[in-house]
Amino acid sequence: MRTFLDCIPCFVRQALDATRFVTDDVRVQERVLRETLRAASEMDLTATPPEMGLHIHRAIRELTGVADPYRAVKEEFNEAALALYPELKERVEQAPDPLDAAARLAIAGNIIDFGVQSRLDAAEVEATVRDALTAPLLGSVDGLRRAVAAARSILYLADNAGEIVFDRLLIERLPLPRVTVAVKGSPIINDATMDDARAAGLTDLVEVIDNGSDAPGTLLATCSPAFRRRFEAADVILAKGQANYETVSDVEKPIFFLLKAKCEVIARDIGCPVGSLVLAARAS
Amino acid sequence: MRTFLDCIPCFVRQALDATRFVTDDVRVQERVLRETLRAASEMDLTATPPEMGLHIHRAIRELTGVADPYRAVKEEFNEAALALYPELKERVEQAPDPLDAAARLAIAGNIIDFGVQSRLDAAEVEATVRDALTAPLLGSVDGLRRAVAAARSILYLADNAGEIVFDRLLIERLPLPRVTVAVKGSPIINDATMDDARAAGLTDLVEVIDNGSDAPGTLLATCSPAFRRRFEAADVILAKGQANYETVSDVEKPIFFLLKAKCEVIARDIGCPVGSLVLAARAS
Repeated sequence: MRTFLDCIPCFVRQALDATRFVTDDVRVQERVLRETLRAASEMDLTATPPEMGLHIHRAIRELTGVADPYRAVKEEFNEAALALYPELKERVEQAPDPLDAAARLAIAGNIIDFGVQSRLDAAEVEATVRDALTAPLLGSVDGLRRAVAAARSILYLADNAGEIVFDRLLIERLPLPRVTVAVKGSPIINDATMDDARAAGLTDLVEVIDNGSDAPGTLLATCSPAFRRRFEAADVILAKGQANYETVSDVEKPIFFLLKAKCEVIARDIGCPVGSLVLAARAS
Repeated sequence: MRTFLDCIPCFVRQALDATRFVTDDVRVQERVLRETLRAASEMDLTATPPEMGLHIHRAIRELTGVADPYRAVKEEFNEAALALYPELKERVEQAPDPLDAAARLAIAGNIIDFGVQSRLDAAEVEATVRDALTAPLLGSVDGLRRAVAAARSILYLADNAGEIVFDRLLIERLPLPRVTVAVKGSPIINDATMDDARAAGLTDLVEVIDNGSDAPGTLLATCSPAFRRRFEAADVILAKGQANYETVSDVEKPIFFLLKAKCEVIARDIGCPVGSLVLAARAS
C-alpha cells in the first residue's frame, strides 16, 4: 500500500509519541521530530507507510543511543499474553470450528492494546476476545483452510510481542512441519523478534526465522536474501497486522491478511469500515 | 506563547484539512503539506503557533490562487449568528449582571462550531449558550468591569466571522465612544475582516480598524505601524479566542483574554483544564 496524505500527520504524531516513550529529553524529542518532518517533506509517497516508521525509529535509536527501547515492555506483553494462553487454547479446542476460533483469536491479539502499562485489564481482554469470536469477519476461514491444506510451505509473518502468543493458537492449528514463522531481524518498536518467538514457545513448535530487517511489517528491500528466498518460495503466506498489510499488500503472492483495520486509510484501501476484523486473501 | 512540540502534529493536520477545504486537487494538497513539513522542520519554536498558521495559509493562497477561500463560509456564519442575535441580546438585558452574561456569550461565540455546514444546529447552540451562561469561569468579570470603567481607550481584538456577532453583545456593554474593535487586514482562514465587522453591525456602533495583517491572532510584527500605535496606546485590551491568546499572551499590557481553552497546550499554558471558559486578565 502506498502512503496517503492522511498518513503524514499520523507519522508526525507517532514520532513524537515514540520519542517520548524512549526519552524525557525534550531536546532529543525535538531533534527526532525535526528529522521526521524533514524526511516526510521529501518522502516518496509511492513508498509504503512503514518505510517512514523505519526512518523514524532508526532516528530515535541513533539520537537516544537506546538499541531496544521496548525490550522490557515486550517481555511484559509476552508474560501477560502467556497467562491468558491456557484458557484461550481450551476455547479453541472446544469451538465448533477450531481453525476459525484460532484465526479470530489471532486477530484479537492484534486488537488488544498491550499499551504502556504491563498489566492487562482482564475485563477488557475478555470483551475483546468475545467480540473477536463473534464479530462479522471480512473474508472467511474456509479459503485459508483450503490453501493451507494444499500448501507445501506456509510462511507466517508475525507482528508484535504479546500478540505472538495469540498467533501461536492459530499456528498450532496449521500443519506444523510445513510452517515457518518469521520475526524481525532486529528490534523495531514492540515487534516480535526471535526472543519473543522463544518466549511464546514457538521455537519448540515450528521453524522460526528472522527476516533480517529492522523495519515494521515486511519491507522486502530491507530483508535478508535468505528471508526473501523463503518468502518467494512459500506457497501460502499469513500476514499479521497492519504493517504487514501495508508492506506486502501489493505483492503478487497468495497472502492471507489477518488484522483489525484500525485506521481510515487502511480500511479504505481494503474496502471495509474502520474497525473491521479482516481475514482476507490476496489471490496470486 | 511559544510553540510546543505538541503543536507540530497539529500544524500538519491543520494544513491538510485547510488545503482540502480550498481545493480537491490532491497534487496541490500534497505541495502544501510538503511545504508545511519543510517549514515546520526548520521552525523557531520560540515563535508563536499562529506564525506557522500564517505560513501555511499563505502557501495555500499562493498554490491555489484563491485569495479568500472562506468568504462564502464567513458570510454564512455571520448570517447564522445574526439570526440568533435579537434573542441573545434580550438574554443579556434580562440577566442579573448583563456584563457577565455578555462576556459569557462572547465566549460562547468562541465555542460554537460554525463548522463547514452553514446551518447551525439550534439545539447545539442553545446547549452551548446555556453552558456558557452557567459554567464556572476562570477569572471573573469584576476585574474587567473595573478596568473598563477606568480606561480611556479600550481595544477589542476580534476573532472569527460569526463569532464577531457574539462579540457585539459584549461590546455593546462597554463605553462605546472609548472602544475600538480591530479586525484582520486581509483574509486568513475564517477570521473576521472589515466586511464581517460591517455585517455584524459593529461599524455603526464603534470605531473599527484593521490590523494590517494576514496572520491569525495578533502577530504584532506583521501588523501595520498604525495598528501597533493603537495597540501600544490602549489602556485595556480584550483579546478574543485562542490565536489572540497565543500571539499576545507574553505582551506586557493589561489584557483580558476571553476564550475557551480548546487544546491541551493552551490549557497548560494558562494553567486550567482543557475545556475551561477563560476570562483572565494579564496585569501590566
